[in-house]
Amino acid sequence: MRNNLKIGVIGTGGVGGYYGSQLQKQGFDVHYLLNSDFEYVKTHGLKVLSPNGDYSFNNVNAYQSVHEMPKCDILILALKTTSNHLLSELLPPALKDDGFVFALQNGIGIEQQIAQIVGPNRVIGGLCFICSIKKGPGVIEHQDYGWMSVGDYRENNYISGLTDRIKMIAEMFDGTGIPIDLMEDLTLARWQKLIFNIPFNGLSVVLGANTKQLTSHPDIRELAWQLMLEVGITAKSSVNRVISEDFMQDILHKTTVMQPFDPSMKQDHDANRPLEIEAIHGQVVRHAKAAGIQVPKIETLYQQLKFINDDS
Amino acid sequence: MRNNLKIGVIGTGGVGGYYGSQLQKQGFDVHYLLNSDFEYVKTHGLKVLSPNGDYSFNNVNAYQSVHEMPKCDILILALKTTSNHLLSELLPPALKDDGFVFALQNGIGIEQQIAQIVGPNRVIGGLCFICSIKKGPGVIEHQDYGWMSVGDYRENNYISGLTDRIKMIAEMFDGTGIPIDLMEDLTLARWQKLIFNIPFNGLSVVLGANTKQLTSHPDIRELAWQLMLEVGITAKSSVNRVISEDFMQDILHKTTVMQPFDPSMKQDHDANRPLEIEAIHGQVVRHAKAAGIQVPKIETLYQQLKFINDDS
Repeated sequence: MRNNLKIGVIGTGGVGGYYGSQLQKQGFDVHYLLNSDFEYVKTHGLKVLSPNGDYSFNNVNAYQSVHEMPKCDILILALKTTSNHLLSELLPPALKDDGFVFALQNGIGIEQQIAQIVGPNRVIGGLCFICSIKKGPGVIEHQDYGWMSVGDYRENNYISGLTDRIKMIAEMFDGTGIPIDLMEDLTLARWQKLIFNIPFNGLSVVLGANTKQLTSHPDIRELAWQLMLEVGITAKSSVNRVISEDFMQDILHKTTVMQPFDPSMKQDHDANRPLEIEAIHGQVVRHAKAAGIQVPKIETLYQQLKFINDDS
Repeated sequence: MRNNLKIGVIGTGGVGGYYGSQLQKQGFDVHYLLNSDFEYVKTHGLKVLSPNGDYSFNNVNAYQSVHEMPKCDILILALKTTSNHLLSELLPPALKDDGFVFALQNGIGIEQQIAQIVGPNRVIGGLCFICSIKKGPGVIEHQDYGWMSVGDYRENNYISGLTDRIKMIAEMFDGTGIPIDLMEDLTLARWQKLIFNIPFNGLSVVLGANTKQLTSHPDIRELAWQLMLEVGITAKSSVNRVISEDFMQDILHKTTVMQPFDPSMKQDHDANRPLEIEAIHGQVVRHAKAAGIQVPKIETLYQQLKFINDDS
């Protein structure tokens, strides 16, 4: 089976390059879409640095255009959401008729957007808890973590349960050592991840600080907590999901005690990349507005982030 | 009269040095409290650079301690509010029994704080619209503007009307060319000034931007407007003053069309001075809380500013 399944990676950066190459290591037939690094990787291959051991492939299936790629059974979508306006051009050419998209992107509304392009029964969502960056041409540096939460997409926020398709994803990663959590309810998982991303992605950029600096300050801990509560009331009002205060306190605690960390949005900001504010903060503000509730603190952060994003 | 009236300046920086020296130019007997610049000014005097003409005094009455100063009829208080914990030591020694304090400070609650030290009938408030900085030892650079709004303090936010005392202030400045607006209602004037200070002092620091950059961005214009509205509801609820939306729109418009300007809090931040967040944002948050109303956007800004203030 491993040799029969064709896997495409759309967006070979820190996330796509790491998970794609891990599957290639397991014997899967992986095909990578690259942009700026295409020439380098085509010639020199791909190298992954990791505390779990470095590895490299001298010959990789590298492509500059999706039209050159073979049709794939699974397309791992690992672009930044700031490029999602390209999805309708990128996904269909590289996807088999019975293939599906495995979306490793941040935020809310990701699967809905993909479903509009490939159909609602062809999307799986993955939430990555990983520190991994593209260090240079053809070099991925995996720094820490790596586990994924995986859930099947259903329209209108229905709960999928544990489908065969997400079990297959878990099996694919068997042997990589990467822990995979299977989620019965992708919608809940997506909103739960916002409990971290809304405060810490946002504040790390606006205040130019890492998680340790942010959580060490009493006013910012309080602000982070208030932002979490606003995510909670939005989840309840707009998608009928309850995120308990215990869950929020656990996230706040974990963020407080973990090693100082620059959230992905701060990494993007420091590297002068566009910020994923629409998929994260913008989506919550729009969900709240549609549900007729107020999220003034998230909205303030969103307004500030748009200024910073446009300014840089 | 001019020669009989003793005027003390507590805090000889951009503001105190400018207004004090303007009165000295008019023949008043002015005495300056200095800190780091004392030795320099004692020896070399005070120089003021201004688009209206430079001037200097070789000999000035300079003091390092209020205990060395003569008792004054009027004490111009021009310290940053971040030093207001010193007021109970600084004011009484230098003030005649029938003298009063003329407070040229930012924020809300200034006069109340002074009244607790010198008594409620001995405080006048002045709101300065001026760009003036201390450029170096003994050198004040007046860059632009300079007019003042002056009002008499009354306990419990009563309206004083135009008192003889504030008319005397206006007369003192006759001949300086500095426009003086006399205010019947100091409380209203103080809260109206927050319509500018809350959004623009705060956002200029958090976003590292001047007034032109801030007002040019649609989301920040909107955020500034929402912050103004929160000031308005707080003024109504806590001190029963109505600030019209026309007034707010006028401030927003004037801020948009004026030359790019770094508000005082940004100047303080850039110069690594402590920020006057308690007298401005902190006061409004506390007034709102006491009145039982929500000001989530001002509170967010206040939390962020406290982080920045503590961080630097």
